[in-house]
Amino acid sequence: MATKRVGNLPADYANNGFYGQDILSVNQFDKGKLDYIFRVAHEMRVLVERFGSADLLQGKILANLFYEPSTRTSSSFMASMLRLGGQVIPINNVQYSSVTKGESLPDTIRTLESYADVIVLRHPEVGAAATAARYAQKPLINAGDGVGEHPTQALLDLFTIVEDLGKVDTLKIAMVGDLKYGRTVHSLTKLLVNYDVEFVFVSPDILAMPDDVLEVVRERGHKFRVTQDVHEVIGDVDVLYVTRVQKERFSDMAQYDRVRDQYVVDEALMAKAKREMIVMHPLPRVNEISYAVDEDPRAAYFRQMRNGMYIRMALLAAVLGKA
Amino acid sequence: MATKRVGNLPADYANNGFYGQDILSVNQFDKGKLDYIFRVAHEMRVLVERFGSADLLQGKILANLFYEPSTRTSSSFMASMLRLGGQVIPINNVQYSSVTKGESLPDTIRTLESYADVIVLRHPEVGAAATAARYAQKPLINAGDGVGEHPTQALLDLFTIVEDLGKVDTLKIAMVGDLKYGRTVHSLTKLLVNYDVEFVFVSPDILAMPDDVLEVVRERGHKFRVTQDVHEVIGDVDVLYVTRVQKERFSDMAQYDRVRDQYVVDEALMAKAKREMIVMHPLPRVNEISYAVDEDPRAAYFRQMRNGMYIRMALLAAVLGKA
Amino acid sequence: MATKRVGNLPADYANNGFYGQDILSVNQFDKGKLDYIFRVAHEMRVLVERFGSADLLQGKILANLFYEPSTRTSSSFMASMLRLGGQVIPINNVQYSSVTKGESLPDTIRTLESYADVIVLRHPEVGAAATAARYAQKPLINAGDGVGEHPTQALLDLFTIVEDLGKVDTLKIAMVGDLKYGRTVHSLTKLLVNYDVEFVFVSPDILAMPDDVLEVVRERGHKFRVTQDVHEVIGDVDVLYVTRVQKERFSDMAQYDRVRDQYVVDEALMAKAKREMIVMHPLPRVNEISYAVDEDPRAAYFRQMRNGMYIRMALLAAVLGKA
Repeated sequence: MATKRVGNLPADYANNGFYGQDILSVNQFDKGKLDYIFRVAHEMRVLVERFGSADLLQGKILANLFYEPSTRTSSSFMASMLRLGGQVIPINNVQYSSVTKGESLPDTIRTLESYADVIVLRHPEVGAAATAARYAQKPLINAGDGVGEHPTQALLDLFTIVEDLGKVDTLKIAMVGDLKYGRTVHSLTKLLVNYDVEFVFVSPDILAMPDDVLEVVRERGHKFRVTQDVHEVIGDVDVLYVTRVQKERFSDMAQYDRVRDQYVVDEALMAKAKREMIVMHPLPRVNEISYAVDEDPRAAYFRQMRNGMYIRMALLAAVLGKA
Repeated sequence: MATKRVGNLPADYANNGFYGQDILSVNQFDKGKLDYIFRVAHEMRVLVERFGSADLLQGKILANLFYEPSTRTSSSFMASMLRLGGQVIPINNVQYSSVTKGESLPDTIRTLESYADVIVLRHPEVGAAATAARYAQKPLINAGDGVGEHPTQALLDLFTIVEDLGKVDTLKIAMVGDLKYGRTVHSLTKLLVNYDVEFVFVSPDILAMPDDVLEVVRERGHKFRVTQDVHEVIGDVDVLYVTRVQKERFSDMAQYDRVRDQYVVDEALMAKAKREMIVMHPLPRVNEISYAVDEDPRAAYFRQMRNGMYIRMALLAAVLGKA
Repeated sequence: MATKRVGNLPADYANNGFYGQDILSVNQFDKGKLDYIFRVAHEMRVLVERFGSADLLQGKILANLFYEPSTRTSSSFMASMLRLGGQVIPINNVQYSSVTKGESLPDTIRTLESYADVIVLRHPEVGAAATAARYAQKPLINAGDGVGEHPTQALLDLFTIVEDLGKVDTLKIAMVGDLKYGRTVHSLTKLLVNYDVEFVFVSPDILAMPDDVLEVVRERGHKFRVTQDVHEVIGDVDVLYVTRVQKERFSDMAQYDRVRDQYVVDEALMAKAKREMIVMHPLPRVNEISYAVDEDPRAAYFRQMRNGMYIRMALLAAVLGKA
């Protein structure tokens, strides 16, 4: 990704290198950049809790371009921009509109950036965000490109660990459920290898963490354990990151039913967990966490949502040179 | 509905009890609360007519969540929030988005309130607003839940009577058309029983006002008259509230045609009406009021629309503690 | 179109006659009005380039009503309103909502203007904007009514010529492609006859400029030339306005393929063009301009998009009495 210039400053000299840049992948984030974004996101949290909103991005416009629907993510970006005093052009129904009547993604992007100061893009195809960013003069933030990247999700996940547990180093982190197709656990793992953590991967065989992700963990010298039984490890972990096991992955429905029930986080499971730990989930959940657990202070998944807003506020402010 | 706390004030000590509260049903409104909201709504009217808008809700965000389309109501809430200086996250296409991919209403609400300060909900199922409000920490306003409640419609109807005729007591109020299925006339009647009014219910037999609503009227000691002929009563009423008679209600099309023509409000009917009276309609109309009547100063239905904005401004300000 | 009154000023005495007026057709624009709007649009450009945005329309609300999807045009109007400090109610999905459940366009317009200060309307039927404007008390801007008018497109096209080439008089302007069905070239021609220009109409026979447009050109005493070969004229023109040739127009696919290839603007064609000239296109393009041409400084089509925002800012400010 080429360095873009916005205004008079060369991009790399301001905002820890974020000014004018695209946010495309978790691979852009080393420990220094993570620390910086988490510090800004924490400031955003204080700002929102104290004042509700600010006028840091007053007069700036975000084009919120969603080629597939995602209420959660699009609302989060909208709220982030609005809480910073900016404005949003929401483009949610591209399936019916001119952008799909044969128009190329680069032309759509170049049109929208003639109206807006920053673009958020959700697209069903892997690599769409990188393609779009190559043509955009204005900063572009990847809000998920198919089974590819969804960097702001991984950042908000890691930020939740930092905010709730006060650190990342020395933690034992279990990921549970569908580790094979779950984009969020892959990306989070790639961020976590920057820290001194221990991994536990809990899944049925057919949904095991893929080798390329395990390879990254090994390469960086991290300990990890693979198991099928969440009960065996629950008493020992600081973070339990739960993902949804989707019916569509199974050809044998009896196997699906067994797996689904085996990985449900309920009060009985939580009774065996440490007092100081958190349960995370990218949401939406179906039945992999029982509703009774919501009232448990260790249930962090709604805090995760809110942290998503703080992370996106931090990124928007950073790429627009206002963090 | 539990009392919610917002900020440091216990909810009941501020804003006549509106601060931090949900608006779910007309049953929440006694005469004192009605007087309060109408006073604030009138101030909103003066404010808009004089200045266009204000900054009372600056920095506040409304999540405008519509599970079924309603341009009129969603636009009215948006305008209300924007005219008070607040911002809006519109969520209109939930049928295609993640909120219907198996996610429960409570989870959607808890997600959205992590971004927003107040939620407006339109939902096709009776009781959805009450369910949502039980999970929401932030105030929630019911914008219609199926054949259940649509309290802001009833409030704007009553407010229109107050603004146009200067009082409610001693008025004679006729409701015309489909009184059986018309949610608006049921709710308005439940509000009107708080005042010294006389009712006239005008409808074909098969679309008569249901017994449970008549029971409320009787219980509160109000006079009412039931008739099938609008011509018989037009000369005598202060308010003529017209509702649409829907074709789908009839199995006999000949009967439908007869009824439809019988209840059309046209210039001939208006010629028999008092000089000081108003014609109301919740809109959209099809042909139950002829276009020629629009220019009659007694036609109040477009003023009703505008009053809807003032009422919603008043409610948003009140539940956010800024009225 | 009747003169509307907004506030205390008679409409014709302020803003060169724009205050409180509708923008329905290019026929409303004589040279004086064009000069005025282009002067204001240029100021908007300076304002955006220098400050990003302004607060000229603070507290004003635009109802952006699109009966058919057009991401480009609706986003452009939204951005224009937001950059002037105003707010927008976007209404994009009218196909599913109450406005198509039998409700008439006039009722929809009268409802929306009770919430908003200005209305932008896109509608698939010719004449819809004029009908809507007749009922609206607030100013209404036509954002395209079927094969009828799309005046802001023609204005931004002409403004692009003014901004890029510094003048209109004495220019030689070629229009290429589908001149029969292309609404944009008809409207632009009707504006250009106000200036001392020479026309070249380049198209296959079956897509020739219609007689009624040629008649306007003749009537105003302009020279024009008709040809099928763009190569023959490329070396001589100041403006090359390219339009899309749509497959649907042809019954003979072999003919379509021939025509499509013949009118592609590529680097080879550009090598024969003058150094000081511009290539324009209303977008979206499919393959009538090759991507390699995008980097050519003479490619004006993305600047055209941006100019669309400045023109719409100018019009919004003018009709609201703030230009």
